[in-house]
Amino acid sequence: MKKHNFSAGPSILPQEVILKSSQAVLDFNNEGLSILEISHRSKGFIDVMEQARALVLELMGLEGKGYKALFLQGGASTQFLMVAMNLLEKRAGYLNTGAWSAKAIKEAKKLDDIYEVASSKDANFNYIPKSYDIPEDYDYFHCTSNNTIFGTQIKSFPNSPIPMVCDMSSDIFSRDIDFSKFGIIYAGAQKNMGPAGATLVVVKEEILGKVSRNIPSIMDYKIHIDNGSMYNTPPVFSVYTSMLTLEWLKNLGGIKGIEKLNEDKARLMYSEIDLNPLFKGFAAKEDRSIMNATFTLENENLKETFETMLKEAGISGVNGHRSVGGYRASMYNALPIESVKALVEVMSELESKA
Amino acid sequence: MKKHNFSAGPSILPQEVILKSSQAVLDFNNEGLSILEISHRSKGFIDVMEQARALVLELMGLEGKGYKALFLQGGASTQFLMVAMNLLEKRAGYLNTGAWSAKAIKEAKKLDDIYEVASSKDANFNYIPKSYDIPEDYDYFHCTSNNTIFGTQIKSFPNSPIPMVCDMSSDIFSRDIDFSKFGIIYAGAQKNMGPAGATLVVVKEEILGKVSRNIPSIMDYKIHIDNGSMYNTPPVFSVYTSMLTLEWLKNLGGIKGIEKLNEDKARLMYSEIDLNPLFKGFAAKEDRSIMNATFTLENENLKETFETMLKEAGISGVNGHRSVGGYRASMYNALPIESVKALVEVMSELESKA
Repeated sequence: MKKHNFSAGPSILPQEVILKSSQAVLDFNNEGLSILEISHRSKGFIDVMEQARALVLELMGLEGKGYKALFLQGGASTQFLMVAMNLLEKRAGYLNTGAWSAKAIKEAKKLDDIYEVASSKDANFNYIPKSYDIPEDYDYFHCTSNNTIFGTQIKSFPNSPIPMVCDMSSDIFSRDIDFSKFGIIYAGAQKNMGPAGATLVVVKEEILGKVSRNIPSIMDYKIHIDNGSMYNTPPVFSVYTSMLTLEWLKNLGGIKGIEKLNEDKARLMYSEIDLNPLFKGFAAKEDRSIMNATFTLENENLKETFETMLKEAGISGVNGHRSVGGYRASMYNALPIESVKALVEVMSELESKA
Repeated sequence: MKKHNFSAGPSILPQEVILKSSQAVLDFNNEGLSILEISHRSKGFIDVMEQARALVLELMGLEGKGYKALFLQGGASTQFLMVAMNLLEKRAGYLNTGAWSAKAIKEAKKLDDIYEVASSKDANFNYIPKSYDIPEDYDYFHCTSNNTIFGTQIKSFPNSPIPMVCDMSSDIFSRDIDFSKFGIIYAGAQKNMGPAGATLVVVKEEILGKVSRNIPSIMDYKIHIDNGSMYNTPPVFSVYTSMLTLEWLKNLGGIKGIEKLNEDKARLMYSEIDLNPLFKGFAAKEDRSIMNATFTLENENLKETFETMLKEAGISGVNGHRSVGGYRASMYNALPIESVKALVEVMSELESKA
């Protein structure tokens, strides 16, 4: 039986993508070779890379607007460093909305001066700060669009007077926003886009080339752009599978199409959390993430029963992060609403039992 | 028809590894989830990571000798920077044996002073320099064990008075050497170990912690060691497939077992190059790589005929690198001797036609 996979990442991928990926491991494009053993300089793979990069800009509505899409390695944790190396000359402003924002700040601080424009640490990051100023004379402003651990999400992005950099690892391609507001968008693939091992970076070219630092080649966005995202051997399989997921998304109606489905799933999930007296949501209502719903079971005595019921229903990956406790339902793009229905049913059944 | 895959990397993998990998994309360990959608913190994957790291040390004979194996991201190109960040305080010595050595030198120079202990650039890198001194008061000595582009290989490593760092990307696990001579060994997975996207680093722990630099977390070997190679989300699928390849190698008799097979393949290949008057080897005989044989076709008029014959025989990936021209037969661990026989047969047939 296929499980209901609520894993926070790496996480569920569309079943058709999994089938095609598995087939390409056996034989890619009927070329008589596995996708794992072809050269990244072969025509077959160059086409994959170009198609993946083009789909990113097309889905984001960024074609012809001066942006380039790159598929790199090392995850958001590498981007924390790379962003600062490419953009930080004197001082940057960071919005601190959780564990990942804090890590981004920590790494940038190793290079130069960082200012926290606002933080929600005072309430264990259960909300998104809203009134803050972004100083005009800073190099850039950095934020995290969605906080996987805490289940919060920025609903309205500021109009930043300086380049806005956003870690969208956990909600990229999930909702329709104006991507042209950003100077750099980055995201590990392993939530909404593909398997672990690829990292998407979308860069507005005009913001580069303004620091005096001698940037190491592997950290230099310009070098990756000039080399068509092939400066070094790319993570071939992860890029291929990401391309398949982007094609799947396009066929579903793109970001607008998936946003509707994601909203339906989130509405169903949060209704149950709010209406069922056994559970309590963690995040402030207006900042609730449509990707990760965090909630606790009020009566600890029911824990064992609840978890046995989850297991019996084939529900996997709903344990909360240790910083919050309780449960977390990650409802990424590929999660079908049937899985949310299955979870809600178990929650509701628990109520009738209690 | 399955091709004879002489690709320089990403390159051929054992057929049984490909079959198991493809199956795990559909369902990993009968868990009802794809290897692409499980959490890297799940017991199933933690076991894979631990098994892969243990196999590396076991195969290299480094168990209990103070070494740790890591599976990171970013390839050798990232290690060029990471090695220098972790070890370079004042000055390091580098042996320049080709394009990749030169890149390693270039990146380290961005951080501090680098001295080329020797170079074979004078002869387009067709040999390995042999008499050079490694200064005792430098931080470390860096070399490249095998030069994919030029087809040369270090046959005897120096006794370095300072930590020896080696880029073994293109011949790791192919021959029996004393790995305990090295302070750091690194290698992109995509030649002898697995698909692109994972990078193996083997570090002798005692050489770390000696620089005053504030190392960025993602670049810090110590942080990766302390986190069991899970500081950030690892490239799950590439690590899994690497583990399968390491298991395959162990079952073949480990490094000693594969070395014998690799020597047989290389002997067959170089005999044909030396005996067939139409072809000429590029690398100095005593420095010839058992992984990558580089050679040229003396009579340009036969080029088209030769390449048509290669294609008809299902031989793929033998085009030489632009720096050398001609042809390159990469004979990595997983290439069966039958593929070398097929190539040699075409070369010999060309001779009888000419």
